[in-house]
Amino acid sequence: MVVANRHLPFPHPPPIARPYISPTVKTFVSLPHSTEAVIPTMTSSSRKLQVMTPVPSDIDIANSVEPLHISEIAKDLNLSPLHYDLYGKYKAKVLLSAFDELQDREDGYYVVVGGITPTPLGEGKSTTTVGLCQALGAYLNKKVVTCLRQPSQGPTFGIKGGAAGGGYSQVIPMDEFNLHLTGDIHAITASNNLLAAAIDARMFHEASQSDKALFNRLCPVNKEGKRSFTDVMFRRLRKLGISKTSPDELTPEEVKRFARLDIDPESITWRRVMDVNDRFLRKMTVGQGSEEKGMIRETGFDISVASEIMAVLALTTSLDDMRERLGTMVIGNSRAGEPITADDLGVGGALTVLMKDAIHPTLMQTLEGTPVLVHAGPFANIAHGNSSIVADKIALKLVGPGGFVVTEAGFGSDIGTEKFMNIKCRYSGLRPQCAVVVATVRALKMHGGGPGVVAGRPLDHAYVSENVSLVEAGCVNLAKHISNIKAYGVNVVVAVNVFSTDTEAELNAVRKFSMDAGAFDAVICSHHAHGGKGAVDLGIAVERACQNITQPLKFLYPLDISIKEKIEAIAKSYGASGVEYSDQAEKQIEMYTQQGFSNLPICMSKTQYSFSHDASKKGAPSGFVLPVRDVRGSIGAGFIYPLVGTMSTMPGLPTRPCFYEIDIDTVTGKVVGLS
Amino acid sequence: MVVANRHLPFPHPPPIARPYISPTVKTFVSLPHSTEAVIPTMTSSSRKLQVMTPVPSDIDIANSVEPLHISEIAKDLNLSPLHYDLYGKYKAKVLLSAFDELQDREDGYYVVVGGITPTPLGEGKSTTTVGLCQALGAYLNKKVVTCLRQPSQGPTFGIKGGAAGGGYSQVIPMDEFNLHLTGDIHAITASNNLLAAAIDARMFHEASQSDKALFNRLCPVNKEGKRSFTDVMFRRLRKLGISKTSPDELTPEEVKRFARLDIDPESITWRRVMDVNDRFLRKMTVGQGSEEKGMIRETGFDISVASEIMAVLALTTSLDDMRERLGTMVIGNSRAGEPITADDLGVGGALTVLMKDAIHPTLMQTLEGTPVLVHAGPFANIAHGNSSIVADKIALKLVGPGGFVVTEAGFGSDIGTEKFMNIKCRYSGLRPQCAVVVATVRALKMHGGGPGVVAGRPLDHAYVSENVSLVEAGCVNLAKHISNIKAYGVNVVVAVNVFSTDTEAELNAVRKFSMDAGAFDAVICSHHAHGGKGAVDLGIAVERACQNITQPLKFLYPLDISIKEKIEAIAKSYGASGVEYSDQAEKQIEMYTQQGFSNLPICMSKTQYSFSHDASKKGAPSGFVLPVRDVRGSIGAGFIYPLVGTMSTMPGLPTRPCFYEIDIDTVTGKVVGLS
Repeated sequence: MVVANRHLPFPHPPPIARPYISPTVKTFVSLPHSTEAVIPTMTSSSRKLQVMTPVPSDIDIANSVEPLHISEIAKDLNLSPLHYDLYGKYKAKVLLSAFDELQDREDGYYVVVGGITPTPLGEGKSTTTVGLCQALGAYLNKKVVTCLRQPSQGPTFGIKGGAAGGGYSQVIPMDEFNLHLTGDIHAITASNNLLAAAIDARMFHEASQSDKALFNRLCPVNKEGKRSFTDVMFRRLRKLGISKTSPDELTPEEVKRFARLDIDPESITWRRVMDVNDRFLRKMTVGQGSEEKGMIRETGFDISVASEIMAVLALTTSLDDMRERLGTMVIGNSRAGEPITADDLGVGGALTVLMKDAIHPTLMQTLEGTPVLVHAGPFANIAHGNSSIVADKIALKLVGPGGFVVTEAGFGSDIGTEKFMNIKCRYSGLRPQCAVVVATVRALKMHGGGPGVVAGRPLDHAYVSENVSLVEAGCVNLAKHISNIKAYGVNVVVAVNVFSTDTEAELNAVRKFSMDAGAFDAVICSHHAHGGKGAVDLGIAVERACQNITQPLKFLYPLDISIKEKIEAIAKSYGASGVEYSDQAEKQIEMYTQQGFSNLPICMSKTQYSFSHDASKKGAPSGFVLPVRDVRGSIGAGFIYPLVGTMSTMPGLPTRPCFYEIDIDTVTGKVVGLS
Repeated sequence: MVVANRHLPFPHPPPIARPYISPTVKTFVSLPHSTEAVIPTMTSSSRKLQVMTPVPSDIDIANSVEPLHISEIAKDLNLSPLHYDLYGKYKAKVLLSAFDELQDREDGYYVVVGGITPTPLGEGKSTTTVGLCQALGAYLNKKVVTCLRQPSQGPTFGIKGGAAGGGYSQVIPMDEFNLHLTGDIHAITASNNLLAAAIDARMFHEASQSDKALFNRLCPVNKEGKRSFTDVMFRRLRKLGISKTSPDELTPEEVKRFARLDIDPESITWRRVMDVNDRFLRKMTVGQGSEEKGMIRETGFDISVASEIMAVLALTTSLDDMRERLGTMVIGNSRAGEPITADDLGVGGALTVLMKDAIHPTLMQTLEGTPVLVHAGPFANIAHGNSSIVADKIALKLVGPGGFVVTEAGFGSDIGTEKFMNIKCRYSGLRPQCAVVVATVRALKMHGGGPGVVAGRPLDHAYVSENVSLVEAGCVNLAKHISNIKAYGVNVVVAVNVFSTDTEAELNAVRKFSMDAGAFDAVICSHHAHGGKGAVDLGIAVERACQNITQPLKFLYPLDISIKEKIEAIAKSYGASGVEYSDQAEKQIEMYTQQGFSNLPICMSKTQYSFSHDASKKGAPSGFVLPVRDVRGSIGAGFIYPLVGTMSTMPGLPTRPCFYEIDIDTVTGKVVGLS
């Protein structure tokens, strides 16, 4: 067995760079499990990464490495060309047939990476996910697949920049990762907006036609003088309890029930989407053209990744399952209070056709040539913030027993990991052995009472000089994440993503608190500066954690209790003493219960900046009452989402967006200025 | 030399099917150039097409043929794998580097396919384009590439259905052709809407900030205390005539000129786009959220293919040229009347990055295994309605001397072919040898005074029974198209797309009139029912036309005359006696002239259903006065477009859209119900 190198040789002096930099600590704290010394070596299929100091910009590092042809990556995974489609030289869609072929094979280990409650700067969760996999694959000779979310293109041109990891732990080509990729988000935009157009068009046509005229248009007489129902119409008929098979058999009452959806415009929750940061579309009035005859309506756009269709993509398990989920998405109610679905509008099949390629995950690679599956990227507050089930399932078969699938969950354990366990694992039937919690000294100091951290402003002195007591005070946040995750029955490994300003005493404090709080292990990592080599200890700890699992997976709540009981179970895990419901929330809970949707899991829409609903409450607040102001449903995706506070679902552009830097070198064709 | 088979053997009885069916005429009229008899045989690289009668549905035919792996098609073209990227098994992007490598090679023949003034049912122009190429490639042993426009996805789910040709003359896989393809239209949507978001966000930020604050945000001080301009900022500085290179050197007056675009909201012509038929977005008010502080604005969405960026893609000649065109797109004016460009907003580079893959055409195949390049699909009224210059240029090199590139132009010669000659060929420097004019007996009867033809309603008796005098009367329309196209110096071949109801006397009348009007040849074709075999005579005629070209290409107008003189030259070609300008049109012409844009070619935005501005005027109207109600510019794409009548740039959905039929077979993964 390969174990840790206690004194990882850093070939270069500690660099100063952004945002994660190698530690100034010269000697790493010894880890309890390190009983032998070993010098990690690159595996045969991986590449030598020549790191530079200071760490260059992300795009410069990404452009400095020539990616392997993606068929090489597929070959390393023993993936037959029958089971993938190339999209250029560096991307391939892995077909669901790959899973079918391997379905009898035993799964590999399943590792989820989450974080503590973050600062607005992010604590390097994607970077750690990638770095860990580079260590496992390129240094520890393990079969490994990284499963990541596809980022929204909007922020790439707005404030945030790209999301492919950072420094020497990145997915490449990073421009392709951050831009169109293989078109999945574009497919979501197209299908989301086809459904939106179908809603308004249907209301428009219903407004001017009698039941009979409507029916005659929906079921026209063909050249042979006959009329028939289409497949999707039979779905509506079944829902209405009408078992007749010929349009001519319907009574006038049945004709009315079938043809007139009678959508209540006030009830429509389906919005249009666009993968662009366009704040002026947040609230708008449509239908103002004279041809729309005054049927104006107030609505708005969300960013595409906030579409329920993205959540469907992330939670679906097969093409057939996706067809069902897309068809049962609820867009609002009839005036009589019945839920109206995409299939009621006749469009569930077309939505699936638009999504038929998007269901296949995209294979890419890390800087060190390990495989990555990129798939789905639902919002982590109004949705469940995890990459797709199908990617994880395929990956677990591809790595096989003894291999590792490392998947990322958005934000802290209260957000991404909780939903990973209670929603994603519930639908997938998969169980993780290990959860990695990414922490930074910076964020812990903030939780200990340090000054506010604001993106774009210089860090306060407290964050760049030693202050062990501030770190210790902040560890209450880390401890709560550890204990919350342990409750699911998985082993928790803390990964401390080091910065050059962190000191040995500070790092030791984090380790001690982690172990005291019940972590299986706590490891210092420098993968931003050193790639996989900087995360070898983490890889070893994760392997041990996976091998030493003793408990079954335990969910936080069963599905067969009431919506309120489920909300309260989650609130309690945050530290809340109770839950307060607005009248609107009460009304919605009653409606969803009446409509038969109370057995769905709950997806809390809450700030990621605190365990509570109040972003300013750092550390581990307790005794607060969680206010639920509204409750909505993503019925097709398969969850109810209570809104705790106001979540923006459409970002805006600042005065000087990222795009000012972004251009193309028209000679080489390379993208410049992506960050 | 291979020549025509006078009596093309039809192995099956004449079928009855939609929309184009094999002729009832048992004996074809003999063609003047058919001096030898030959039995066409399939070339080695092509497939045997087993035709059935009645002709099955388009999707059934498309699904019945297993496409060749696209690398086979590439190999037939001697295209090195270095010069294309696979997108799945049946699509590949042919890289612009393919042209660079072959640039010293002589071009093949260049054939443009247009039509007569159509009925709303369409006269089979795409089908004829594909059928002609199947004949040239699969039966006449010629190197051939078909260049087609990518269809909008909106109509696929709305009324029209797909656009891959029809019957046994189709591009396959037809579902991929009609859906996302390789994402080019999605890239256009994304870049168009990033620019739109940038406009509103900039106005929003300018409204609340002083010149200095704005400048400080645009050129922030970095960690070293320095500030600098980005590349795109230097473009704006050059436009303003400021040659300073450091932000610190600018005077307060220069700071103001640089940082404050001062866009006049009333002048904004840039709209958002979506590739969905969503009529409720035609006119709307945005910015109604409280965070947008009352900065509401009336605007709307067009369908994506109406974006200027689509026109740029179609007219660009290189990555560098595309960067320039995208940056110089004008979105409106400053309050002082200066044109404001994408580069003024800092976003020209980012738009190019979003379009960097879209610039490469997509390789597909016909049912008979001949290569197709699909690329760009600009609107044929507010834009120029032709596929891309880069696809045609690459194709002409790939086929080489003696080979054929057949490219399609939208609608009649007054629309697509006129713009092909005066805009597309002007920018490409290419010259066609032959123009094919597709005619149907049905459309000619309409021009001769037959009753109105309305989509979705049964055809009048006049169209399904012999009426030679009606056909003869309608040939004035065909004659005018022939003479208009001949004026460019190309040979005109008339392709009569036969229907089962056409009679020999009717077809003879069309041929006689065509020859009298100066056509090089006129050929009866049955490629819908028989594939390439049904268009062999057409292929032979086209080859002769290309070989017998005697004149240089002549444009309809030079560029260095005034906007009005150019409009009047085009109006005259329609048969107009003069042009009438609204006050708005006069104002715009004056503005564009002042802004230095009067040297651009003209792209008339006119109904496709008449030579005149009045869709009800069939045949060859003359003596009318053409009313120009407004004049707009696609400055980046490179044309001025006068609006003659009202053009809808966003279709709607009917009560029963096509999507009611469309679904996926979740077992086979095949799309069903596409038409």
